Amino acid sequence: MTPTSTGSPTFTCLGGGHGLYQTLLSARAADAAWINAVVTVADDGGSSGRLRRELDIIPPGDLRMALAALTADTEEGHLWRSMLQHRFGGNGAMAGHAVGNLILAGLTDQQGDMQVALDTVARWTGSVGRVVPMCAEPLQIEADVAGLDDDPRVLRSVRGQVAVATTPGAVRRVRLLPESPRATQEAVDAILDADVVTIGPGSWFSSVIPHLLVPDIVDALNRTEATVTVILNLSPEAGETHGFTTERHIHVFGQHAPDLRVDYFLADNFVSPTEGERTHLRRAASGIGAEIVFRDVRESHTEGDGFNRHDPAKLAAALLELMDAR
Amino acid sequence: MTPTSTGSPTFTCLGGGHGLYQTLLSARAADAAWINAVVTVADDGGSSGRLRRELDIIPPGDLRMALAALTADTEEGHLWRSMLQHRFGGNGAMAGHAVGNLILAGLTDQQGDMQVALDTVARWTGSVGRVVPMCAEPLQIEADVAGLDDDPRVLRSVRGQVAVATTPGAVRRVRLLPESPRATQEAVDAILDADVVTIGPGSWFSSVIPHLLVPDIVDALNRTEATVTVILNLSPEAGETHGFTTERHIHVFGQHAPDLRVDYFLADNFVSPTEGERTHLRRAASGIGAEIVFRDVRESHTEGDGFNRHDPAKLAAALLELMDAR
Repeated sequence: MTPTSTGSPTFTCLGGGHGLYQTLLSARAADAAWINAVVTVADDGGSSGRLRRELDIIPPGDLRMALAALTADTEEGHLWRSMLQHRFGGNGAMAGHAVGNLILAGLTDQQGDMQVALDTVARWTGSVGRVVPMCAEPLQIEADVAGLDDDPRVLRSVRGQVAVATTPGAVRRVRLLPESPRATQEAVDAILDADVVTIGPGSWFSSVIPHLLVPDIVDALNRTEATVTVILNLSPEAGETHGFTTERHIHVFGQHAPDLRVDYFLADNFVSPTEGERTHLRRAASGIGAEIVFRDVRESHTEGDGFNRHDPAKLAAALLELMDAR
Repeated sequence: MTPTSTGSPTFTCLGGGHGLYQTLLSARAADAAWINAVVTVADDGGSSGRLRRELDIIPPGDLRMALAALTADTEEGHLWRSMLQHRFGGNGAMAGHAVGNLILAGLTDQQGDMQVALDTVARWTGSVGRVVPMCAEPLQIEADVAGLDDDPRVLRSVRGQVAVATTPGAVRRVRLLPESPRATQEAVDAILDADVVTIGPGSWFSSVIPHLLVPDIVDALNRTEATVTVILNLSPEAGETHGFTTERHIHVFGQHAPDLRVDYFLADNFVSPTEGERTHLRRAASGIGAEIVFRDVRESHTEGDGFNRHDPAKLAAALLELMDAR
């Protein structure tokens, strides 16, 4: 599809976890005609990790969260959303499992294919889009991490999303195991057919970078006529990107995908308020052929969680503006 | 509602497990206008038992099976049916859980009420009826069992549905714990509003008799204008009714509900082929104010499981005939 300023655009959003959830809400706020979520498959923690290990399936958690973001805006859709997201309490065998994870696991176990399971739940929930795993097989991430030894030059391998996300060391580089996996055809098509493609925000090494390590995804991103925007995080996360500046996020992004060209990095005004900082970021972005833009995209609550969340309506406006400007 | 020979009747079917499932299929085959399933809540085995113990909910298995019998006769309904019934394999924490049990447990955990959960799944599955627990709280069954000691006159208490169903002794009597529980209003209304009420078939002590131990249910059965038919088992089950004759089934039924009057016992032709046996059975039934009728209601397969299953169309015809005859 060709981007147009008239008519409703198709959004394809790459990521995982809460960052992707919030971006999908902004795609809804942008009145997207259709929304594809392309989701990482390397989670090994919590409910997802337990189901993955027991049933040898793609970890369902990030997929389930994306489905929940896309349920119909009706009473039934809202019920489905809260049901998919509901977690069992207590301390038994069910404790911590999200009900939606169990449904996806059950449907996949029964029908033999996670994509069929995702499309089934999408239909039941009156979804306004489609959720697609990045790859058809569960993957691992492995990171080279500095600072775990006395000698800061020594890099150690840390394997598994939870281990990487919580390492006290400094993550230098991540890779997927197995390396260079095939993307799903659905993921490639979703990128090629979009008017707007977003990458991020989210846990940089475990939800964002993994997409760049799939050659078919990089190839599709380079070929699509969509406006491709990387949505930068509002703040560094504890753990994997503790202490990372926004500039470092951009560098790391480029380092993991030297052949990838994107159109925009989108940063919040608040992140880099001074002109000096912005100049640095412009240089970092242009090093990988992209322009960086600064907009007010943060939720305006002054305290609590919301402080670090993108506002769906503000983010939608910025993404549509970038689509139209190109 | 008043029974009529014109128009589609309302069926209310009391029972649990596979027996209830098959009766609900026959209510569908009878072109029922509406079908209520009133389901026992004393199961403590398998997936149901694990969820019941962990989450302190009504055991969902028998309820889920009834929901599966009532899904819409569409492609989507069939998918729902097989999904609800699908069980995880393997040997991990999920092994043996039916997906539908997890959905009911999740919805109940989220919404705080099993009836709300049941009505939600019924809506999603395009159900042709409603599934109602007999009581709002999980119950235990306890049996007096003979033959467990050297002295055959000694009765021992055996507690729990699995223990009762598999006892090598002879079950003399069962009771519910707590005793004389309140029925749900939904169960009472379903009995009062029906044109046809069925009780059984199924595991006699653990799926059928428990209904007779709820005073509100007995009262509703005595007050309803529906034709009340007890569907006798095609064969004794291993375990709880091992070696029981059909006559013994009728005696046990009456013994547990001395104040209850039913209209018919329905036996298969095959069960008691000789006129002498039938005379005995007529006498047993009339002892509790009922008539026994013999019809061909068995599935006509000549081998395998089916040999002991009621044929939905044949059973439907017999139930409609009894409704019209009264």
